Parts: sequence; structure tokens; C-alpha cells
Amino acid sequence: MNVKVGLKTHVLENNRTQAAMLREKFAGRTLVVNMTGSPGAGKTSILEKIIPELKKELQVAVIEGDVQTSRDAERIAKMDVPAVQINTMGGCHLDAKMIAGCIDDIGDMPDILFIENVGNLVCPAEYDLGEDFKMTVLSIPEGEDKPLKYPGMFRNSKAVVMNKVDLLQYMPYDIDKVEKEVRGIQPDIHIFRVGADAGSAAALSDWLKEELQEKRR
Amino acid sequence: MNVKVGLKTHVLENNRTQAAMLREKFAGRTLVVNMTGSPGAGKTSILEKIIPELKKELQVAVIEGDVQTSRDAERIAKMDVPAVQINTMGGCHLDAKMIAGCIDDIGDMPDILFIENVGNLVCPAEYDLGEDFKMTVLSIPEGEDKPLKYPGMFRNSKAVVMNKVDLLQYMPYDIDKVEKEVRGIQPDIHIFRVGADAGSAAALSDWLKEELQEKRR
Repeated sequence: MNVKVGLKTHVLENNRTQAAMLREKFAGRTLVVNMTGSPGAGKTSILEKIIPELKKELQVAVIEGDVQTSRDAERIAKMDVPAVQINTMGGCHLDAKMIAGCIDDIGDMPDILFIENVGNLVCPAEYDLGEDFKMTVLSIPEGEDKPLKYPGMFRNSKAVVMNKVDLLQYMPYDIDKVEKEVRGIQPDIHIFRVGADAGSAAALSDWLKEELQEKRR
Repeated sequence: MNVKVGLKTHVLENNRTQAAMLREKFAGRTLVVNMTGSPGAGKTSILEKIIPELKKELQVAVIEGDVQTSRDAERIAKMDVPAVQINTMGGCHLDAKMIAGCIDDIGDMPDILFIENVGNLVCPAEYDLGEDFKMTVLSIPEGEDKPLKYPGMFRNSKAVVMNKVDLLQYMPYDIDKVEKEVRGIQPDIHIFRVGADAGSAAALSDWLKEELQEKRR
């Protein structure tokens, strides 16, 4: 078991070095958001809601991590923003080396770069991609127990999107309790509630613009 | 990259050897079902629906894989069947060695052993736990695209539970199309539709009893 732990430490250490180089590249220019969440939580759908608003005044680009298809990248490309696809070929998370290997494909550095990670609440929590912060999408139908069952992801996130809140009326789900549990894991977290209509993501778009301004200050 | 691939091959090879030993232990006696699915797909809920029915005539036990809590094992133990907890301490899947390390804790070999894997549609697909088959739980709110985005899991499954079908009326979801895509990946797969009421899982319980009889024939 020691061998396994040692190996993982080495992998994470290498990743950290690569992530630091990426962070240097993005410094003072590009806000980088590492989007995480379960399969089907709605990461791509959130991007479809906020990008039309953000691109009115900002350059936006997306790196799409998928196990093997390019379905999400095609959805993003329809919004007429640069979208680059990374296929992990079975891997369950993105790492900094994968980002470094494709970052030049998006052309000029955008104002905001979204990196949509592979759908997984476990491993992506541990891999720094040079981002400013992780933003986790948590959908109502996943059930109330997810923050406490997968605390690593929430501890490492600066924002949580409570998604599909329009389904609250059809299932037992105490959203106030869940949000309290999220804050119990990460007291400084920003929480946004988003439903089916695009307008419900307006506060999230506004906050991302503020975060970009803050980074450039 | 070759080093990485080589290492993974080695890990999977070791796992296969350990899984074969477990399979020998279960031979002719215990039907072992490796349950997989996204976080929140409803793996534990499915067990809560079928175990009360199965335990009327069979010995049932459950191994619960979780990243760090014992919440699911507590839910299972309420049904008065043996439940053993494995915490992967951050790991995103169970492996055969973890099962071998706790198998004696469940006491006498049951008729049916459910192993509830960590919520993840990627890595658990590759790890043989000595099971008879994998059964993947796919919930409607995860969206229609999951089989095509995570085909490895469906290719390696003998059964799929389409869960939370009572939500079909509230969202656009073509279940016939999705099931057709699942069969496109794995033509011999058994598909069960399950909703909020316990009775909707009756066909699944019946099929599991038949699979047990088949194994003992």
C-alpha cells in the first residue's frame, strides 16, 4: 500500500508543477474555471445558459473533457465560441498536462476559460488544472446526501451551482439543509440556484464577471 | 505515456487474479451483483426496493463502497441484512483486493451478494470484483446522452436499471431512444424501468432470482 500512496503523491506532485506553469500563463489575463460534477449534473447546460450572456462583452473559450465522445464540445461550438475537446480515453479526470497540451489550440487567451471536467465527483477534486477555482454543479435529483458523501469536491470548490431547482416541487429535497451542509464543509463557498430557464443563471454570470475584474485588479 | 499504460495493465492484471479467486469462492453458491452508476443515480434506493422482496426467501448481504462515509451501509442495515462498509479513502472505485479483505466479515455466504460500487461511471467499469455481472443504474434526470458518453460501463453490464421513470413526465427524455442506444452498445443487456413505488422493481427481483437459479443449475 505504501508503494501505491507514494506513486500517487508523485503523480500529484508532477501535476502541481505543470499546473503552476499554466497558472503563470493565465496570470492577470484569463479567469479559468474548472467545472466539476456528476455525470448528468448539467455542467454543459450551465455553460449553455451563461455563455450567451458572457460573450456579449467578453471573450469566452471552453475546453471540454470527455471520456471518449465530442458531444459536449459540439454543443458548445454551436454558441460560436472556441471549444477544444480532450478525450481522456477512459481516464476519469483531466490533468494539467492534458490542458497544457491543448491550450494553444484555443488561439488568443480569452477573458474567461471554462474547463469542463469529466463527470465524476471523486478524482477531479485532486487535480489542479491551473484554474482560479473549481465550480461544482450539483443537481437536485442526485439526492440530498452528495455533499457529505463527496466532501473533497466541495472543500476544494469556490462555487456550487444547485442545478435543476425547478424539480424541487416533484421530490423530497430540503435545499436549505443541503446548502447548510455545503457551507459546513466549505464556509466561504458561493452558492447559486439555477433552474430550467436561462434567466435563473444571471447571478452566476454576474459573479463570474466580478471574479474576472477582481483577478485583473 | 507507455509507463503509465504499462502500470495500469499491471494493476488490472493483479486485480483479475484476485477476482478469479473470489469467483471461485462464490462458485455454485452466491450470485454476486456489482452495482454501478453515477452519484445519485439511486443504487441504494434500488436495493431498498428489492431487498425486502428477495429476503423473504433468500439470504441477502451487501458490501457498500463509499469514498468516506457509512451512510449507505446504515440505510441497508435498517433492512436487517448483513451490510459491510468499505471506505476507499478517496479512491473512485472498488477493487477485488478490497472485497477479499472484507468478505469474511459478512459471515456465511449469502444467496445473493450485492456490491454497491462508488458512484462513478468511468473507473468501476474496468475492475472485476469476482461478480457474476455488473448492473448499472441510470437515472432519467442524468439526461439522454449518458450511454453514448460512458459506453464502457454499459458494454460491461448485463443489466441496466432505468431509474426514476416517474420523472419522465417533467422533462424531455426519449426513453425508447436511450434504451435502443444501450442495446446498440450491449445487445444482450436486460433493461428494467423502475420508479418511485417499490412495486415497480418487481420484475428486477424476479430476474435476479432466475439468475441465481441459473447459476446453481
